[in-house]
Amino acid sequence: MGSKRPDRRGFIKGSAALAGGLTLATAEPALGQLPNPETFIKGTDELVAYGDRSKFVRSVRIAHPPDNRPSPDAFGKLFHIASPLQDSVGMITPSSLHFIGTTRGSFVPDIDPREHRLMFHGLVDRPLVFTMEDLRRLPSVTRPHFIECAGNRSRPQHTTVQETHGMTSCAEWTGVLLSTLLKETGVKDAGKWIVAEGVEEVKGASSIPMEKAMDDCMVAYGMNGEAVRPQNGFPLRLLVPGFEGIFNSKYLRRIKVVDRYYMTYNDFGHLTRDPDTAALGYQIGPKSVITFPSGGQQLPERGAYEISGLAWSGGGAIGRVEISTDGGRRWMDAQIQGTAHRMAHTRFTFQWNWDGNEAELMSRSTDDIGQVQPTRAQITEFFDSDRVPGQDNSIQPWRIASDGSVHNAIT
Amino acid sequence: MGSKRPDRRGFIKGSAALAGGLTLATAEPALGQLPNPETFIKGTDELVAYGDRSKFVRSVRIAHPPDNRPSPDAFGKLFHIASPLQDSVGMITPSSLHFIGTTRGSFVPDIDPREHRLMFHGLVDRPLVFTMEDLRRLPSVTRPHFIECAGNRSRPQHTTVQETHGMTSCAEWTGVLLSTLLKETGVKDAGKWIVAEGVEEVKGASSIPMEKAMDDCMVAYGMNGEAVRPQNGFPLRLLVPGFEGIFNSKYLRRIKVVDRYYMTYNDFGHLTRDPDTAALGYQIGPKSVITFPSGGQQLPERGAYEISGLAWSGGGAIGRVEISTDGGRRWMDAQIQGTAHRMAHTRFTFQWNWDGNEAELMSRSTDDIGQVQPTRAQITEFFDSDRVPGQDNSIQPWRIASDGSVHNAIT
Repeated sequence: MGSKRPDRRGFIKGSAALAGGLTLATAEPALGQLPNPETFIKGTDELVAYGDRSKFVRSVRIAHPPDNRPSPDAFGKLFHIASPLQDSVGMITPSSLHFIGTTRGSFVPDIDPREHRLMFHGLVDRPLVFTMEDLRRLPSVTRPHFIECAGNRSRPQHTTVQETHGMTSCAEWTGVLLSTLLKETGVKDAGKWIVAEGVEEVKGASSIPMEKAMDDCMVAYGMNGEAVRPQNGFPLRLLVPGFEGIFNSKYLRRIKVVDRYYMTYNDFGHLTRDPDTAALGYQIGPKSVITFPSGGQQLPERGAYEISGLAWSGGGAIGRVEISTDGGRRWMDAQIQGTAHRMAHTRFTFQWNWDGNEAELMSRSTDDIGQVQPTRAQITEFFDSDRVPGQDNSIQPWRIASDGSVHNAIT
Repeated sequence: MGSKRPDRRGFIKGSAALAGGLTLATAEPALGQLPNPETFIKGTDELVAYGDRSKFVRSVRIAHPPDNRPSPDAFGKLFHIASPLQDSVGMITPSSLHFIGTTRGSFVPDIDPREHRLMFHGLVDRPLVFTMEDLRRLPSVTRPHFIECAGNRSRPQHTTVQETHGMTSCAEWTGVLLSTLLKETGVKDAGKWIVAEGVEEVKGASSIPMEKAMDDCMVAYGMNGEAVRPQNGFPLRLLVPGFEGIFNSKYLRRIKVVDRYYMTYNDFGHLTRDPDTAALGYQIGPKSVITFPSGGQQLPERGAYEISGLAWSGGGAIGRVEISTDGGRRWMDAQIQGTAHRMAHTRFTFQWNWDGNEAELMSRSTDDIGQVQPTRAQITEFFDSDRVPGQDNSIQPWRIASDGSVHNAIT
């Protein structure tokens, strides 16, 4: 990088639009002869069979909240694990980095799929028990869906996007529609709700209205092209698209058709006990968050950047995402990457030229039924409190300081 | 499972349509009290950081062809690794199971992304060198694309679908369009082709027509939501959607804009040396294969099954997939799962009731520019040989014997 060689990154500094005619640098011709790498990853039998990521990629999940560390005696202790959204690209969360909500510390059931059964009983015409092999023979669907814990953003003052929003993830799920199975068992007229139970003693059961059960719920055995991972419910997980994460029972073993809302552990503390009101609280979002640049990251210099983030809604597909770089005064449309799927993370991007002055970045999503993500002022005014009970889907502001450091603007 | 309990799987035996009114079994009420599992996976720090699959899931990649085993002295030896399509679900191939074409045995370059550079030179207005950090600041796209080795199906008599078709995979790729970068460097009038070079000494360079380079090629740093895996080109891979796998250079370090087709190692043996004809051979498909039931698998009994498979084409998105269960006499439309993306694997399914008699299953894809997958008879007649030079995209027939065993019908 001596004096003979102009700054090859001048064009990035100079332009957000990246149209031609910029002041561009030349590369040293000698750089055409880049040396071959001298080190190689040995192709062991294990790596041939099932590959791994680069040792240089160190993006990891963390405890949520960050001070809720696992310990050897954590068995049975409530424990959550958040996904590193700051490093995310695209729509899919890798299964190894999918967030986890658990009640067992970080221990998860080690289930032999040959022994696993899914039972349907209660107000059905024909009680049935399915093996995993049975389920594989039934009509399947494949759909991308997010799952988000209602406790995501429980402390809005957190530093990083992994801490504030890391309890949401999105995978391509494959399985049998719950409606396919309920049509086989038959539902009696009195059957208005289901209780879905997983293997976990607590936090493994939820009441779901029959309308939702017969709509788009899925009994999933596949996740991102392979079997559901143990930390996400292997061998079988209920997907309740757009509902709070706790409804998506892991290690699903039982569906009981019942005549009314059943109180379970899941109702403790975070849901109202009135079934009509509770039902209104089931659905997530609309929500969005900028993942780059986000809290704790650093812009190395002024110039062109791609603002990138995720938007999602329990109400349907994302229809629009807007970006503000001045704390919410002006809004501009972001680009939606690829197809916006129903109840799925949707990647958005926006080309931005940072002029080196302090800035405040925000994203605002609108779903395809017209719901608009609220501002923090709106949501705290609505609840008359800084402490939002349950879900907080308000706009996340990130402040860029003049030194390029990025901070949570909620203090 | 004593005499008091009717066969709970009678309904699967009895019906393909799975409409109500079948003879269904009842479950023992006691099965509502399924025991809790007694074993747990210990939540180590490593598994909290980055999860793993169940020990009960043993789907693995294998050498391709199967007798091409790796060995400790395999460094430098041509070696391919095939994906277990027989176990696949959905559209995405998990990165750990993505097929690999290598020239280094199973060894792969261990590249520090901070040291990696991508150079543009040749017939450009402004030679440029990009760091990984530079590329991350440019406008990105996220798209699902398949990559398929032209040598896939080199031996059509193989037993399993992993052996016959396992050299294709599909991932959600994220990166910068090559056109974005070429517009920055500027292309001189004489620049009609590019040569893309990766770090591998051989098999690391390909000539690509400028029309394709400026259309949908991508310089990808992301794969299925995280960094590209080392076995697939970390930190940077060229995506040339729909072209033979060898064009998708791994460990991409150099793009040279040139005035004509350049002969490289990649042209050896499997491409004609005439550039016009060669260009016609670049594009894959249309193609499809049934992944369940497929060669080596076993149907346990007569009754209802879901036939499932993958279709793809280098010509665009899949428009239609048809299924025959009688060796090609009658064809019925399969269901396409989700959105059929351009140059991406597309999952199809078909509900089938096996009556216990011998059957021959086939799938036939049509892409959205109207190309139809040929029969084996058509392709061997065209080439006047059983040995198809280069790609073989003909219909794959699987024969179901009366004992439920599944066989490759090409013998």
